[in-house]
Amino acid sequence: MPAPQIITPVILSGGSGTRLWPVSRSERPKQFIALTAPETMFELTLGRIEGLANSGAPIVVANAAHADIIRAQAGADATLILEPSARNTAPAIALAALALEESDGAMLVMPSDHVITDVPAFHAAIERARPLVTDGWLVTFGIEPHAPETGFGYIALGETLADGVNRVARFIEKPEAERARAMLAEGGHVWNAGIFLFGARAFLEALAMHQPEMLAAARAAMDAARHDEGAILPDAAAFAACPSDSIDYAVMERAEKVACVPVSMGWSDVGSWDALYDLAEKDEAGNALQGTAHAIEAHGCLIRSDGPAVTVVGAQNLIVIATGDEIVILPRGRSQEVRKAVAALAERKPRT
Amino acid sequence: MPAPQIITPVILSGGSGTRLWPVSRSERPKQFIALTAPETMFELTLGRIEGLANSGAPIVVANAAHADIIRAQAGADATLILEPSARNTAPAIALAALALEESDGAMLVMPSDHVITDVPAFHAAIERARPLVTDGWLVTFGIEPHAPETGFGYIALGETLADGVNRVARFIEKPEAERARAMLAEGGHVWNAGIFLFGARAFLEALAMHQPEMLAAARAAMDAARHDEGAILPDAAAFAACPSDSIDYAVMERAEKVACVPVSMGWSDVGSWDALYDLAEKDEAGNALQGTAHAIEAHGCLIRSDGPAVTVVGAQNLIVIATGDEIVILPRGRSQEVRKAVAALAERKPRT
Repeated sequence: MPAPQIITPVILSGGSGTRLWPVSRSERPKQFIALTAPETMFELTLGRIEGLANSGAPIVVANAAHADIIRAQAGADATLILEPSARNTAPAIALAALALEESDGAMLVMPSDHVITDVPAFHAAIERARPLVTDGWLVTFGIEPHAPETGFGYIALGETLADGVNRVARFIEKPEAERARAMLAEGGHVWNAGIFLFGARAFLEALAMHQPEMLAAARAAMDAARHDEGAILPDAAAFAACPSDSIDYAVMERAEKVACVPVSMGWSDVGSWDALYDLAEKDEAGNALQGTAHAIEAHGCLIRSDGPAVTVVGAQNLIVIATGDEIVILPRGRSQEVRKAVAALAERKPRT
Repeated sequence: MPAPQIITPVILSGGSGTRLWPVSRSERPKQFIALTAPETMFELTLGRIEGLANSGAPIVVANAAHADIIRAQAGADATLILEPSARNTAPAIALAALALEESDGAMLVMPSDHVITDVPAFHAAIERARPLVTDGWLVTFGIEPHAPETGFGYIALGETLADGVNRVARFIEKPEAERARAMLAEGGHVWNAGIFLFGARAFLEALAMHQPEMLAAARAAMDAARHDEGAILPDAAAFAACPSDSIDYAVMERAEKVACVPVSMGWSDVGSWDALYDLAEKDEAGNALQGTAHAIEAHGCLIRSDGPAVTVVGAQNLIVIATGDEIVILPRGRSQEVRKAVAALAERKPRT
């Protein structure tokens, strides 16, 4: 029996989402903010791999613009790969896979801006996946759904490959509400959380087969990379030639040996202020107060301020988010509409 | 026929109300803020006497702490009387009356933090009052009520003294809602707006009769007054001995010859954020946006910011008031409850 593969955590920090505007902004996106705990979500992601058997020091693939924040929040043992431009997840993972090509380790790919409250369940799922990775499978982790969410992609589970591991029957894009309800009722469908485990070489082989142009550009960028303060800086011109695509579209939906480990682990992508309200600690009136936030005869409100003191009097089910220069107020349940505020802001002044 | 008395406007600026917190604060109360127009309410009050026949330069009675703001907002011809301590309206008016005792002019006493949109109606009411003032009456102006307000005192009108002038039957303190509705239905009752016209000597005579201690303290304070940069500074120790009382309690309810001129002149005391919403210009969705305020799919909101940009998305009938350091959010119709936020603030840090 061969020694178990070393798993290298690969943390993707490319996002610059505005769904949590005005706190999350392109210069400091949500993974670098303490939203759900005293630690930032990036720090929580790093902490989540502590205690994982046979794992190595992490690789962080990030936007070069965030190098300083990453250095401040990542441990000294982390390898940084600083992307000169954003090319979506498949090329980002390709850069990390190329860095691991020699050692032929396994890669545990994780977004840096998710919450997982049941870490032992996560580790157990990883252990279930490990034998298949040794056999060359690309494994994704599927979140057991508890609501007919339309904001996530779904995975239809196929035949059982091992205890708690299924072949992926197919990937389903973000569904309409009716279809989401049907999948929830039917069972056998899980949310695609963008968390993956596979061998570096297995991934590169799949890339060579399905995205040879992407692989060539990523390899050229890594071959010509500069090294600066312990970070790897892929060549900008070479990487600029790389097609932009998600790992789901570019690889997972096309590859042969794709498995899924369904898991229930208190996962959330904290994809909206409503999601943060759901996760947050609340007082007896159902108010989640974060920072300089105060509620008087108010109920069911999320009030967060990193700037001025905010006092809500006598209102119900509001979301109030304040920074030093922007405040947004919306009813709970409509927090996806924060994008409308961001769009309006972009018309008023250069987007931040 | 004697020459008509010269009317000296006497503007009272003693208030430090917190009903419009966080914009109105003790160091800059609402009369010094541009709430309803590009001009502050103090400036609007000064402008309201322009064009009034036989009127002289105004006297401003104000808190000494506001001397710099007053000097910046009052015209060069105004006489400032800077109170060393707050003693309510009767002593404040006594100081002004003593300054006018020699000339035996008439005094038009006006709060500095009210709005009057129909100034010609106000001037016409003053002209109706003028002959009675010559005859030694103390005249108050009563606002024709349009709602059963419980936040104002009322005046019951008595016999007709002249066209559009009634004797005051009695003053009624802020009533319960039921009584307010009854008075509105019955007619013959007007709101006490705290606007008065009387001869300086007539007022001092009434004070001598009903409040001799108050008159003595005010006179001692004026006799020992200092004069500084054109302002009169009554002696602090002498004025500290003056009883504190309102003109209504101290004089008007006790004096013999008290008349009322009912008038409808677009008056508001702008006593709450709800009142400001009523006065404000609104867009087609019923939103009043002041300063860096934005509404997206919102309806019926008052949104005002002197600080950060505020965006309300999809909410209805909210009041949102932001300064650089404080934000308060409450439902429309409950803006009197802003006092609860002020009280809570006082528990958190020294009151501002």
